[in-house]
Amino acid sequence: MKKKDVVLIKRDIYAEIIKAAKHLFNEVGFKKTTVADIAHELGMSQANVYRFFKTKAEINVAVCGQIFSEIEAASEEIARDSGPASKTLRNLIASVERLNSLRFHEDPKLHELLQTAYDENWLIVREHSKKMDKILEGVICQGMAAGEFRAGDAELAAILVGSACMRSWLMVQRPRDPEPTTDQMIDFCLSALV
Amino acid sequence: MKKKDVVLIKRDIYAEIIKAAKHLFNEVGFKKTTVADIAHELGMSQANVYRFFKTKAEINVAVCGQIFSEIEAASEEIARDSGPASKTLRNLIASVERLNSLRFHEDPKLHELLQTAYDENWLIVREHSKKMDKILEGVICQGMAAGEFRAGDAELAAILVGSACMRSWLMVQRPRDPEPTTDQMIDFCLSALV
Repeated sequence: MKKKDVVLIKRDIYAEIIKAAKHLFNEVGFKKTTVADIAHELGMSQANVYRFFKTKAEINVAVCGQIFSEIEAASEEIARDSGPASKTLRNLIASVERLNSLRFHEDPKLHELLQTAYDENWLIVREHSKKMDKILEGVICQGMAAGEFRAGDAELAAILVGSACMRSWLMVQRPRDPEPTTDQMIDFCLSALV
Repeated sequence: MKKKDVVLIKRDIYAEIIKAAKHLFNEVGFKKTTVADIAHELGMSQANVYRFFKTKAEINVAVCGQIFSEIEAASEEIARDSGPASKTLRNLIASVERLNSLRFHEDPKLHELLQTAYDENWLIVREHSKKMDKILEGVICQGMAAGEFRAGDAELAAILVGSACMRSWLMVQRPRDPEPTTDQMIDFCLSALV
């Protein structure tokens, strides 16, 4: 077997473990799912699962990361639209809200994992927030370059928009990282009003 | 003793129980404080406390309500300012943030009570949200009448401003009642950008 094939197979097993874990998390909840359950679901030994993930906590993070990756990929796809930035921004936020709402209603047990990740402020949550801020920033930059949005600090604008619209993002609301100051948030609200 | 005096004394005892409970909640936490502790603090019998509050849960709500009342009173005071509405709005939101931040840092155990009230979506939290929305609405109405703000739906604008600035309000973020739709929230963000 060539080295490349081994890498490919390893990647497949990695993905299969995440897939099986996600399935079980959705069936019985992530807290009740053991590594033994995941191994059993895949017909492999626990030792084999532990070759890919050192702890159950690592599997939790990987499932979380996969869900976030899907949201990021869908958002990046929308962000590439060439239409007006306001339309792209609206589509992007609505799409994230739809994905989260869908999971919340159809996969409530899986949503519990994300709720816990937010409540405990896992690193992957902060990384996801930063990636989403970057995607928003790109759209806002386009709008500013096209003269559609008032020129200004696109990075801050992205944080403000994400922050103001946050109740849709995962339907959980915890302090974000980075966090806009109260003054920045009020300025934003005022500029929407005036 | 005249009837009026009895009413006054009753009101005083009621206030004293809330004061003692608040003190103990801040010392040992609201979950660890018993009705017996509160009675002991006041040098009265448990039976006497129960004449004013049927359950410990009612005392929790009353302490919460007192904290909310203080925030509402401070906000109403600011809302009466005759200066520009944008200045009043900024002062109002900054004042609420300051009061919450102060409690969070100086009375962390008392803050736990409010966190629980929000987490469990107590009726008093929803009532407080509605009162704060009304105060915001009054300020926005003034700004609209003076031509300082674009004319429009002041009630909705109040919900949007409160919603967007919510991370300051008690530093906890849970779905609000009433909840703006995603579309309304996006419209708001866009009008701040364009």
